[in-house]
Amino acid sequence: MAPVFSFRVLHRDGSARSGEMTTAHGVVQTPAFMPVGTQGAVKGVTSRDLLDAGAEIILGNTYHLWLRPGDQRIARLGGLHRFMGWDRPILTDSGGFQAFSLGGQRAITEAGIRFRSHLDGSEHLLTPEGATDIQAGLGPDIAMVLDECLAQPAPVGEVRASTERSARWARRCRDRFLQLGGPAPLRHAAAADPGTTVTVTNARQAQFGIIQGGTVPELRALSADRTLAIGFEAYAIGGLSVGEPPETMYSVVEYTAPLLPADRPRYLMGVGTPLDIVEAVSRGIDLFDCVMPTRNARNGQVFTSEGRLTIKNAKYADDAGPLDPACTCYTCRTYSRAYLRHLFVAGEITASVLNTVHNLRFYLDTMARVRQAIVFGTLETLKRSLRATYSRPLSDS
Amino acid sequence: MAPVFSFRVLHRDGSARSGEMTTAHGVVQTPAFMPVGTQGAVKGVTSRDLLDAGAEIILGNTYHLWLRPGDQRIARLGGLHRFMGWDRPILTDSGGFQAFSLGGQRAITEAGIRFRSHLDGSEHLLTPEGATDIQAGLGPDIAMVLDECLAQPAPVGEVRASTERSARWARRCRDRFLQLGGPAPLRHAAAADPGTTVTVTNARQAQFGIIQGGTVPELRALSADRTLAIGFEAYAIGGLSVGEPPETMYSVVEYTAPLLPADRPRYLMGVGTPLDIVEAVSRGIDLFDCVMPTRNARNGQVFTSEGRLTIKNAKYADDAGPLDPACTCYTCRTYSRAYLRHLFVAGEITASVLNTVHNLRFYLDTMARVRQAIVFGTLETLKRSLRATYSRPLSDS
Repeated sequence: MAPVFSFRVLHRDGSARSGEMTTAHGVVQTPAFMPVGTQGAVKGVTSRDLLDAGAEIILGNTYHLWLRPGDQRIARLGGLHRFMGWDRPILTDSGGFQAFSLGGQRAITEAGIRFRSHLDGSEHLLTPEGATDIQAGLGPDIAMVLDECLAQPAPVGEVRASTERSARWARRCRDRFLQLGGPAPLRHAAAADPGTTVTVTNARQAQFGIIQGGTVPELRALSADRTLAIGFEAYAIGGLSVGEPPETMYSVVEYTAPLLPADRPRYLMGVGTPLDIVEAVSRGIDLFDCVMPTRNARNGQVFTSEGRLTIKNAKYADDAGPLDPACTCYTCRTYSRAYLRHLFVAGEITASVLNTVHNLRFYLDTMARVRQAIVFGTLETLKRSLRATYSRPLSDS
Repeated sequence: MAPVFSFRVLHRDGSARSGEMTTAHGVVQTPAFMPVGTQGAVKGVTSRDLLDAGAEIILGNTYHLWLRPGDQRIARLGGLHRFMGWDRPILTDSGGFQAFSLGGQRAITEAGIRFRSHLDGSEHLLTPEGATDIQAGLGPDIAMVLDECLAQPAPVGEVRASTERSARWARRCRDRFLQLGGPAPLRHAAAADPGTTVTVTNARQAQFGIIQGGTVPELRALSADRTLAIGFEAYAIGGLSVGEPPETMYSVVEYTAPLLPADRPRYLMGVGTPLDIVEAVSRGIDLFDCVMPTRNARNGQVFTSEGRLTIKNAKYADDAGPLDPACTCYTCRTYSRAYLRHLFVAGEITASVLNTVHNLRFYLDTMARVRQAIVFGTLETLKRSLRATYSRPLSDS
């Protein structure tokens, strides 16, 4: 039987690496970007569009899928891959971030996160064991541990307490994960939630730990120590991209990435702009996810090789050119800026579809360029070019 | 140079015909259904999806495109085909129906239809000459004459007056069409609207007349006489599917279709359900358009070989089967009813996309079955089968 999860670094350029991550549903070339499929769909597109854009792995949100349509329903239907019509790799988050940010009156205790559903106000408790069970039912190739999301800024004492609790939760997640069989044949087990059953729909699931510690180097080191001591297939850096200045994020990444094993992929959660991604890659990060390409597309903001473009701008009303002359996506091959502006102004669904198709391709093409640059040792050049394009204000707003 | 427009009947089954309609942008197999692209897009899908569904011709709405983004803008951008990224046949309506039904405080005089834009309240006058000019700029393969849309029911005297006015408007439309060059090289002309220019973006455009006359046989005959005397590439039956009982519509079609030349396609405007379409085909109709497959898709109502299906129904929550086991569209090949129900309930854009992909395929597959049945002389059998499936109330609502 092939290993559950593996990672090979193939090329290096400074601290940046390009490689291959192998999961139960196939290989992902890294550095990789994961489009976000919040509610079981990457908003505005189909699985076919995702393949066409070049996506090799996508992210699902445990919180949303748990509350609706329900992890047990998805498990009965064969797991998230089959449910979504996507047979390539999937990573799910643990649900903690959404439970914290969307739930009303949420309270964090040692047991877990108590919150009210944003859908119907019903009360729920998300525990480390529960988050692991839910993800066992969903069956992504990579599950994440439940961590505490701390509102920032916070006093160092609070950050320390939170970081230590996240480490204890990580231990409980791993114990539960191993109890469910880790890599094992399809099986059922009594769930952490009494009276229910866990259906393990992907017996070859991997589990990633998450490094917390806010912006305090000493706490990042503490979190890395504790989390690595538990032992996961790989590790993520959490608690960033929550409003801190980019430079702060870059320096936390620069400090934290080398604390993580060089032979495992490193995942920077929730990041970011094209420039953020390249900056993080050059500091040793391999995996990214962000709603930016999809959300911005629906809001009419498009990423191009020349910078961002706000499609509703009147100057595009007669523009016969494509969104991005350097892009070969279906949208750019077929439609003009004038047409896309018209669809956006007219409120057509197809505007969201076509802008999303383009923005995803832009992000995924950017990752391909990043990988190529690492092979050729030219990542610094690419970074300078993206910095020139993406660190200035919007080109046309 | 190939003829601008031609039609060949290849097979007959009773009054039904199957054939080929040749236009400047290619051949359409008839009987044909035209998906409706109101604002320059068939709602929820891309041109690629339309091709994939098997669409050979689509319909655009002159009223919407005239007001936004503007016919002259579309003409500057090369015409509607290029603008929409659709290089197969297009038919546009004349704008009269929308000007009448969407415009506030509209008034019909001999000059034309005066109305206020539903977008910004601005006042406009749509004349027969103007409707012809606008369609010259849009450049569909088939343009329609401006006709008067009469609110039904109306006294016979009013229907007669309206029918006669429509015939006079048809004359003015044809005169203007010929003045613009009819089939001629690309040219500009002074527009009917003073101070503007008409750009003829499709020099091989055909123009269809429209038979009015409400539900009064004698007025239908009068309208056919007058309209045929003017002479158009082909003829449509208008003023139906506006709330009259299906049996009334069928009998008006049965009476009117034989009044139209047998060697030209006959177009029944705005119709209809799958059953309506087959009933009309069996009475000699060749072309149809309707928003039903696309609008119903967005509302979660799906057409299947077993009848209509309301996807939000709770009974589909755990249904692992496809929308329609007899369908081979992308949606049915890839996704379960359970997933599609989830997307619809969750308000995902992708729900509209996937339901639309399916409903269009269902309609277009139904047309293919209709054509096949005509070839084999089995249209009555197909009609009985559709009558059993589609004349009963919704299967699950």
